[in-house]
Amino acid sequence: MVVILKNNPDKGQLNNLVTWLSGKGIDVHTTVGASQTILGLVGDTTHLDIDLISALDIVEAVRRVQEPYKNANRKFHPQDTVVKVGDTLIGGGNLTLIAGPCSVESEEQICEIAQKVKASGANLLRGGAFKPRTSPYSFQGMRQEGLRLLSLAKKLTGLPIVTEIMDISQLPLFDDVDVIQVGARNMQNFELLKALGAQRKPVLLKRGLSSTYEELLMSAEYIMAGGNDQVILCERGIRTFESYTRNTLDISAIPVLKQLSHLPVIIDPSHSAGKSELVDALSCASVAAGADGLIIEVHNDPPHALCDGPQSIRPEAFDKLAKKLKKVSEITKL
Amino acid sequence: MVVILKNNPDKGQLNNLVTWLSGKGIDVHTTVGASQTILGLVGDTTHLDIDLISALDIVEAVRRVQEPYKNANRKFHPQDTVVKVGDTLIGGGNLTLIAGPCSVESEEQICEIAQKVKASGANLLRGGAFKPRTSPYSFQGMRQEGLRLLSLAKKLTGLPIVTEIMDISQLPLFDDVDVIQVGARNMQNFELLKALGAQRKPVLLKRGLSSTYEELLMSAEYIMAGGNDQVILCERGIRTFESYTRNTLDISAIPVLKQLSHLPVIIDPSHSAGKSELVDALSCASVAAGADGLIIEVHNDPPHALCDGPQSIRPEAFDKLAKKLKKVSEITKL
Amino acid sequence: MVVILKNNPDKGQLNNLVTWLSGKGIDVHTTVGASQTILGLVGDTTHLDIDLISALDIVEAVRRVQEPYKNANRKFHPQDTVVKVGDTLIGGGNLTLIAGPCSVESEEQICEIAQKVKASGANLLRGGAFKPRTSPYSFQGMRQEGLRLLSLAKKLTGLPIVTEIMDISQLPLFDDVDVIQVGARNMQNFELLKALGAQRKPVLLKRGLSSTYEELLMSAEYIMAGGNDQVILCERGIRTFESYTRNTLDISAIPVLKQLSHLPVIIDPSHSAGKSELVDALSCASVAAGADGLIIEVHNDPPHALCDGPQSIRPEAFDKLAKKLKKVSEITKL
Amino acid sequence: MVVILKNNPDKGQLNNLVTWLSGKGIDVHTTVGASQTILGLVGDTTHLDIDLISALDIVEAVRRVQEPYKNANRKFHPQDTVVKVGDTLIGGGNLTLIAGPCSVESEEQICEIAQKVKASGANLLRGGAFKPRTSPYSFQGMRQEGLRLLSLAKKLTGLPIVTEIMDISQLPLFDDVDVIQVGARNMQNFELLKALGAQRKPVLLKRGLSSTYEELLMSAEYIMAGGNDQVILCERGIRTFESYTRNTLDISAIPVLKQLSHLPVIIDPSHSAGKSELVDALSCASVAAGADGLIIEVHNDPPHALCDGPQSIRPEAFDKLAKKLKKVSEITKL
Repeated sequence: MVVILKNNPDKGQLNNLVTWLSGKGIDVHTTVGASQTILGLVGDTTHLDIDLISALDIVEAVRRVQEPYKNANRKFHPQDTVVKVGDTLIGGGNLTLIAGPCSVESEEQICEIAQKVKASGANLLRGGAFKPRTSPYSFQGMRQEGLRLLSLAKKLTGLPIVTEIMDISQLPLFDDVDVIQVGARNMQNFELLKALGAQRKPVLLKRGLSSTYEELLMSAEYIMAGGNDQVILCERGIRTFESYTRNTLDISAIPVLKQLSHLPVIIDPSHSAGKSELVDALSCASVAAGADGLIIEVHNDPPHALCDGPQSIRPEAFDKLAKKLKKVSEITKL
Repeated sequence: MVVILKNNPDKGQLNNLVTWLSGKGIDVHTTVGASQTILGLVGDTTHLDIDLISALDIVEAVRRVQEPYKNANRKFHPQDTVVKVGDTLIGGGNLTLIAGPCSVESEEQICEIAQKVKASGANLLRGGAFKPRTSPYSFQGMRQEGLRLLSLAKKLTGLPIVTEIMDISQLPLFDDVDVIQVGARNMQNFELLKALGAQRKPVLLKRGLSSTYEELLMSAEYIMAGGNDQVILCERGIRTFESYTRNTLDISAIPVLKQLSHLPVIIDPSHSAGKSELVDALSCASVAAGADGLIIEVHNDPPHALCDGPQSIRPEAFDKLAKKLKKVSEITKL
Repeated sequence: MVVILKNNPDKGQLNNLVTWLSGKGIDVHTTVGASQTILGLVGDTTHLDIDLISALDIVEAVRRVQEPYKNANRKFHPQDTVVKVGDTLIGGGNLTLIAGPCSVESEEQICEIAQKVKASGANLLRGGAFKPRTSPYSFQGMRQEGLRLLSLAKKLTGLPIVTEIMDISQLPLFDDVDVIQVGARNMQNFELLKALGAQRKPVLLKRGLSSTYEELLMSAEYIMAGGNDQVILCERGIRTFESYTRNTLDISAIPVLKQLSHLPVIIDPSHSAGKSELVDALSCASVAAGADGLIIEVHNDPPHALCDGPQSIRPEAFDKLAKKLKKVSEITKL
Repeated sequence: MVVILKNNPDKGQLNNLVTWLSGKGIDVHTTVGASQTILGLVGDTTHLDIDLISALDIVEAVRRVQEPYKNANRKFHPQDTVVKVGDTLIGGGNLTLIAGPCSVESEEQICEIAQKVKASGANLLRGGAFKPRTSPYSFQGMRQEGLRLLSLAKKLTGLPIVTEIMDISQLPLFDDVDVIQVGARNMQNFELLKALGAQRKPVLLKRGLSSTYEELLMSAEYIMAGGNDQVILCERGIRTFESYTRNTLDISAIPVLKQLSHLPVIIDPSHSAGKSELVDALSCASVAAGADGLIIEVHNDPPHALCDGPQSIRPEAFDKLAKKLKKVSEITKL
């Protein structure tokens, strides 16, 4: 951390600061210039509150040098984290395909789709039971009943389940769920993150619509600080000025997050674009950029889906896409 | 709502759509052009799922004409909503000042600040007990003990309390709280919004960092749909490309939200800027633009605040500012 | 175009509007609802000034149905435009690689890089002579002398040249240039676009940092309206809240622009990321998403480049990348 | 400037860097930590190319401490710059009102509006002759003839003229213009900025749609580096995710720019919002936040304006607004 002091800082306050920092095990190196003095802080600054230091009268600005996350940081954990879900490995060079409908709608629907995506090579089944919707008047998901239907589909196909939690109080219902998803809108629901850090199921953590890479990793850090290091990062499109697509897929998130962190990175091309005709291109791009996996919406009857229909592809399209993705993966992995 | 059809739409599907819409009480007017057919939907389209219609094979695009919110919509409630908290009226031409520290830190701190801001004309006391922090290693608030100290300050000064809730499970602790604040990161925590709609305390709803006016009003609608119409909207800065200020205060939100909705609109200049030296200018601007109130961070010792120090002003500055704001309000209200 | 009227519009004004529209060859279909009247405009609305109509007292809002661009619109030109530069075809299923240094620095530098990228399969040579720099104190390019050195490299290798123009007055110097590049900051320099529409060299038009797809296509339309239909669109990263990368590559621009327009779409992975270590992943992703080509910065000595060093890769890296891109292209084209 | 080195930097390269920096008059102070070495550069770093240093193999990151602009920097010029145009002073505590139509349309129009806004207290007349329009099919301004009509209105009323230049080649036509405006889309048209730095008329420089404060000040620096220090900064709304308003007025730009720079700061509320009904609130807010002036679109017949009608107010509204702004200014200036 680098602390830039205002001109002619009060000597007493400066001494107080240096003493306080030393007490926290931080070495302070001072660079005095003609018009500016800079303090270089050396040591573990992860636990220093940057806001606190910025607020001091003698401080003009503080610049971080070290990342503020530790458990999620590749510098301290150079090896890829590989999350094991049933027989599936996520991360570490494997390509994981998660597929299924936006919402669970009926036993027939979820079971049929589960069987089809399994036949096409999907490794996990996704499906929403609790649905975050912008409007209180839109379909809110089948909730507990949806979880029951997901369990049936899991029993039928053997596919592990990924589904979204919206509130801590729902956690007891997630016993048969294999990977708990935190949606973009809850990425900074810190109480929920703490609760998920206190349990041991893997967590699929989606990036918030306007969250930086660092904020995403800090949210992962919340979970990991609780003792659960089974976190899968998921980029699902960010909010920008461009409104033609629902969100803007930030493809650079893949190489950047994999450089900064050892956690697996997967992509949600369906929510990124909000248009089914873009899923193919965005999926290929994601795998080519090094993604560890994809979570794709597949529906047997998109026009009648109870939500998010426009972005779902049909099982036949998924089947063709899955084959292409394997080939892209083989080339770009080299 | 206007539905734009693809060229040469399938006749059968078109008939199905029109029949389905009629069944929902919607009149459909068809405009046939050389290259395009447009359906004009007339009636209450609030409950129509736009995603569902967009997903149909024959539909190219759907454009909303009517706003998707009803309870929060000024068109249906032309009169300003005035929220009554103790003796204070929020909305309806009143100027409400909410002031207090970012976090409750001790009995002395909160009581001293409460007394000072009251003397300067503050109407309500703010103070964080549960603190949403980006880092798990930063101070997380005094939590339940913080609420107890707020109650002491309230008893001492008579100032009603505004404080933030972070999870449904905390609701039972909020008995002595007068206005429950929903933070920006929880604006789309829909389960929390539903719970707040089911109780009767006023809710101060902060706009999410990247939430549109419409999304903010839809979140208000979640609360109001539950039967609680005591909602105060709060603009607190949005996330843009500019990183010099912590966020970008969207001053236009004031006239726009007041035009679209009958709910009171207040501004948080402290979090918008993240710098105490900007609070004065942004507060004056907000009142001049027609805000119903301000929520301002005031601290007796900003450099030692346990969080968010850089954006807090001192009681003396608040006192001077409060006087100026009253004068600005008198001129611009005319 | 759909015109939404305010409640109880003045009859006289409404008649005036309808008559005026009819005079422009537009058919007007009226949908009268209980609380709202909608006009559906049928015909060629490209030349209607949407601002003019929005300004009318009786109009609440105007929604476009048709795209406002015509020459660049795939609806009216379903076939891919293929731009021919020397022996190279850009668009129409070909993969074009444009490579070279950020700035031309010396005869040795540009000639050595030109020979190396040619050997690796590059189709065109890029190199900046006129450099748009944020600071007046940064290197501004070799200007006219840079163009002379590019010509030498072209003579030596046979590679056609792509280089940026910054002002109309420079046009006479571009005689030996094969493709004229318009930089992101000049995408809406309309006088320059008109001048480039009046000449016949192909134009590589970069998307502005915060320009929508529609605005990019409208700028292409400026060039095409002048009679020059040899336009190559280039996505080079947009400005978002994320500041870890210099810009955010909008990978969705590839399938979207190719759907909306018949013009070739290429990607600049170097400026998108601003970091050389991301070029490989972003290039593979772009080709996998269907890009018609890439424009990549290659430097023989990145740490000593006079500008934009951090984002340049070395010739050996380009050689390896070019081979991989050909393979990705073969799979994803299918 | 602070240079953060990678772990175990090559000694030879490090020596080279330090020697090179010393040769440029920069003192280098080294802070060696357990895992990181930091170089503190002391001296005038304005002319150091940050990209060049970032590109070095041994460098992990570079953080600026000093602002990269000098002529525009308040640190080196603590006194407000006051731009004198005729009898009007812009900056230094004065409130300047610039008013007039978006486009010059006819002699009657411009003369009538000029007389009316003068009577209401406007100090300068604005009016577009060259119009930057997104569509090549929209009205492009009366161009040279528009300048002639502006001169007539100036002769009639004595109001100095502000109008926009779009290309260097138009400069000879601007003889009778008093303040030359650079539009948002040309804020980084560096060749134009250089040309305006080489002449002596004041320049009204609008902030680009997605330009940071620093970039705006760097563009001012381009003009000032040429010897012309008569620059007026203008915030006119930035591009964000919110699309309800045309742009988002960044009200914080006022106190921030006035803190960073000594140049006058004015606001364009008309283009910020794109809606005439917001002009009143945004104007009051701007003056309350400390703006040195406003540039407001006023039209005698908004619905028939040839462009940008929706954001123009009528002369009567301007008259009322001007009176209110004077009062707000008196209060908030104190």
